[in-house]
Amino acid sequence: MSNKKPAMIIAGVGNGTGTGGFTAREFSKLGYKVGLIAKNKDNLQSLADELKASGGEAAYFVVSKYDFDEMEKAWAFFRGAFAADEIRAALWNVTEGTRKPFLEMRRDDIQRVSDADVVAGFAFAQEAVRTFLQNEPNEHGKRGFLAFTSATGARRGAPNCTVTATGKFAVRGLSQSIAKEFKEQDIHVSHAIVDAMILTERWKVMFGDEWWEKKSKDETHRVHPISIARAYVYLAQQDRSAWTWELDLRPAHENWTW
Amino acid sequence: MSNKKPAMIIAGVGNGTGTGGFTAREFSKLGYKVGLIAKNKDNLQSLADELKASGGEAAYFVVSKYDFDEMEKAWAFFRGAFAADEIRAALWNVTEGTRKPFLEMRRDDIQRVSDADVVAGFAFAQEAVRTFLQNEPNEHGKRGFLAFTSATGARRGAPNCTVTATGKFAVRGLSQSIAKEFKEQDIHVSHAIVDAMILTERWKVMFGDEWWEKKSKDETHRVHPISIARAYVYLAQQDRSAWTWELDLRPAHENWTW
Amino acid sequence: MSNKKPAMIIAGVGNGTGTGGFTAREFSKLGYKVGLIAKNKDNLQSLADELKASGGEAAYFVVSKYDFDEMEKAWAFFRGAFAADEIRAALWNVTEGTRKPFLEMRRDDIQRVSDADVVAGFAFAQEAVRTFLQNEPNEHGKRGFLAFTSATGARRGAPNCTVTATGKFAVRGLSQSIAKEFKEQDIHVSHAIVDAMILTERWKVMFGDEWWEKKSKDETHRVHPISIARAYVYLAQQDRSAWTWELDLRPAHENWTW
Amino acid sequence: MSNKKPAMIIAGVGNGTGTGGFTAREFSKLGYKVGLIAKNKDNLQSLADELKASGGEAAYFVVSKYDFDEMEKAWAFFRGAFAADEIRAALWNVTEGTRKPFLEMRRDDIQRVSDADVVAGFAFAQEAVRTFLQNEPNEHGKRGFLAFTSATGARRGAPNCTVTATGKFAVRGLSQSIAKEFKEQDIHVSHAIVDAMILTERWKVMFGDEWWEKKSKDETHRVHPISIARAYVYLAQQDRSAWTWELDLRPAHENWTW
Repeated sequence: MSNKKPAMIIAGVGNGTGTGGFTAREFSKLGYKVGLIAKNKDNLQSLADELKASGGEAAYFVVSKYDFDEMEKAWAFFRGAFAADEIRAALWNVTEGTRKPFLEMRRDDIQRVSDADVVAGFAFAQEAVRTFLQNEPNEHGKRGFLAFTSATGARRGAPNCTVTATGKFAVRGLSQSIAKEFKEQDIHVSHAIVDAMILTERWKVMFGDEWWEKKSKDETHRVHPISIARAYVYLAQQDRSAWTWELDLRPAHENWTW
Repeated sequence: MSNKKPAMIIAGVGNGTGTGGFTAREFSKLGYKVGLIAKNKDNLQSLADELKASGGEAAYFVVSKYDFDEMEKAWAFFRGAFAADEIRAALWNVTEGTRKPFLEMRRDDIQRVSDADVVAGFAFAQEAVRTFLQNEPNEHGKRGFLAFTSATGARRGAPNCTVTATGKFAVRGLSQSIAKEFKEQDIHVSHAIVDAMILTERWKVMFGDEWWEKKSKDETHRVHPISIARAYVYLAQQDRSAWTWELDLRPAHENWTW
Repeated sequence: MSNKKPAMIIAGVGNGTGTGGFTAREFSKLGYKVGLIAKNKDNLQSLADELKASGGEAAYFVVSKYDFDEMEKAWAFFRGAFAADEIRAALWNVTEGTRKPFLEMRRDDIQRVSDADVVAGFAFAQEAVRTFLQNEPNEHGKRGFLAFTSATGARRGAPNCTVTATGKFAVRGLSQSIAKEFKEQDIHVSHAIVDAMILTERWKVMFGDEWWEKKSKDETHRVHPISIARAYVYLAQQDRSAWTWELDLRPAHENWTW
Repeated sequence: MSNKKPAMIIAGVGNGTGTGGFTAREFSKLGYKVGLIAKNKDNLQSLADELKASGGEAAYFVVSKYDFDEMEKAWAFFRGAFAADEIRAALWNVTEGTRKPFLEMRRDDIQRVSDADVVAGFAFAQEAVRTFLQNEPNEHGKRGFLAFTSATGARRGAPNCTVTATGKFAVRGLSQSIAKEFKEQDIHVSHAIVDAMILTERWKVMFGDEWWEKKSKDETHRVHPISIARAYVYLAQQDRSAWTWELDLRPAHENWTW
């Protein structure tokens, strides 16, 4: 296998049924090695095994939580696991946001989002940019592609979403600043606003099998994570004459208020 | 050739070297028939010939100017030229904006943008939506895909750009309103904000061969219209679980202020 | 009476019970002469009489409709009616937007908005700027203050609001462009986004006395036009160290989605 | 002195020469008692003395840093210092943002902004809302008025501003979410985007007396903090038929890119 195979680092893989997992699968199909970050080792092992069984290459790093230190360690690990000039893409797909009334939010609710979405996201992005700067531009003119999965809460606040909006707005500002600061170094930064519930098996547990059965088949009102993954594939392959920072993604029939 | 071949109507083809022309070429390669609208018959004939020579199908309609009537006539023509259920995509790629100091703008400068960008764009979109509503959803769950080429002037005003911003803001509001009104009828509407000069041969005439030679090869500071066309291809093929209304497109190194 | 009394030109006074009328009253109380533009002579005469009875000065100009020509004529008239260096403020408070399904909009619906909101608004603004440029800065450092009354439809599109959003987005882009182009000439441009129904007697006719009686007293869910007028007074008096281009205005309890 | 005198809590008073200090002075002139929060006791004492010498009432609370705990303690103190139903306004005027290249930002740079701008801002706002909810609406129909001083970095990212934009975007999302969640409880929340350097004596130290002498007198290119304070006075007094969430404030001649 050639050293020239690109690699992608993905933070926030969860149980592999959401955006992180499907992005890993789609980029793996494209020939990328993937580096996975999540809190649960079994889930990571399971996804890595699946990718390898399909002919892909995968490594993973277990974090105890999302914070500055853990992100530095994870990237140090992946820079060892992959050869120089291989890491070409990175996805920040982490949020610790919760939905409840403002006055019921505890210190921990905001601190956790602040540490994970904001501080750890910042560290993840720094490591990605540092790593990309070592690369030569690829066939799309990029030293690296850095994407952020975001949500409607990054564009407008809403009742009961104070914590979520705080984190999502923060990451939007971060991503735009990095995009502008490193454009001349050929680093492409994107921010995807997912404007609906992403269908993952978390919801199956929360809402039951019947709900899941109905919802998972109704393509008009849910975002399938594979569709988000495909958006990242498109963005990663945009040629240097036209790069996108931001796009919104919503199901065909989704009610839409901003 | 099967009747099932889809067709796309493109308004604003110019001399075929810009976004309209390259969108025609890209969709033609994908198997779309194309219906072209512009003011110059020779240019239209020439592009249609080129597309046919490459195995595509093309029809065109010459307009004297962009206004409500002409758009109704153009669509009546194309509904005759293509079979029922064939017209699946439409691109509004017209602007009559000019750049000069506010107080030097004449009545005609604002009236022309108002009639072309706003009123004719409105009529074009109405005809597209009316036509799409006759279709069954295609394999991407769409009765039709309606795109608008826009510019930075749709997001922020600027000195000397009063007329352009007026027209571009208007079309942005129009496109978002249509997207929301027809989402449940499976019509996908997108608005592409091109945040840089699009490289077309118009500039060759204006700035000379030397400028063109240098600029046309510098991928870092110009948008090639083929890149915009490819964005439309991606959007037209988005599956119904994740549709994009708006994305921005800019060259890798473009200075970026919003 | 001194020649130094400032004057304000207001387009879109209607029957005097809305934003235009109350802005005239508030600025008249402040010592401004007012120049009123509307389509109905009786309404204009009645408001002018009222203002004079309260010790103010008023002139008016009847327009057959809002278009480029009528705006030029109106300003020519007011430049005659008031002394040089007196016209210090102008309010564009016109919209011809209507609310109905996109496909039921007739050519006239979009053309009327295009001619009135866009083209006539453009002409009104040109005349205002031209006139202001003749002034010396006043005690707030302004040669002139130009305000636009706008609505939520200037920030986001919505179903059944294609025509309204088109016009309102356009005027927003226009106002921002002018603000940027003439800042160094000490012209202050503002854009007020009214995010709710403005309480005027038009609604009394439409919805009946009972509705009006109840609604007009419920301050939590309606914008009283006097509140908008007071916003304009605040903006007109902002000192040159901090000028506002845009603010939103909504009733205390208004449901709010952008 | 009557118990009915309202009080305002201001976090981020610095050395009293900026927005926090002038807001204290302006509201004190209006008859408000003020509660001041800052890190330097001498500065707080000095401002409190000045306000008392002018006939006002002031209390202050020294914080070691801006974090969740300190904000809870500060509010507990002020709820003791002022009578029930007195605290009617609050201003969050804190930022720990710094401006330097992304890759030179240390963990502490982002953690400090995250803890201060985001987490402490969240706690400050929670305490303000909790306190306001105990009040009856005042003559403007408000149980309380909560303002946030923000900057251009809340609307768009920029090179070298990753940390600042992260914090400012976050607070914008927070403020909008609170505005929407508590509108029906008659709490008015505003977010002021200051789009230029605010003239404070910090700059005198940094740039020298000559620079200061020139700049402090050039009203066209600097925001004087008293102008921001006056915007807060206007907002605090808006009647319940028209409340503003967001406005921008910039000097007359400021170059303006969003």
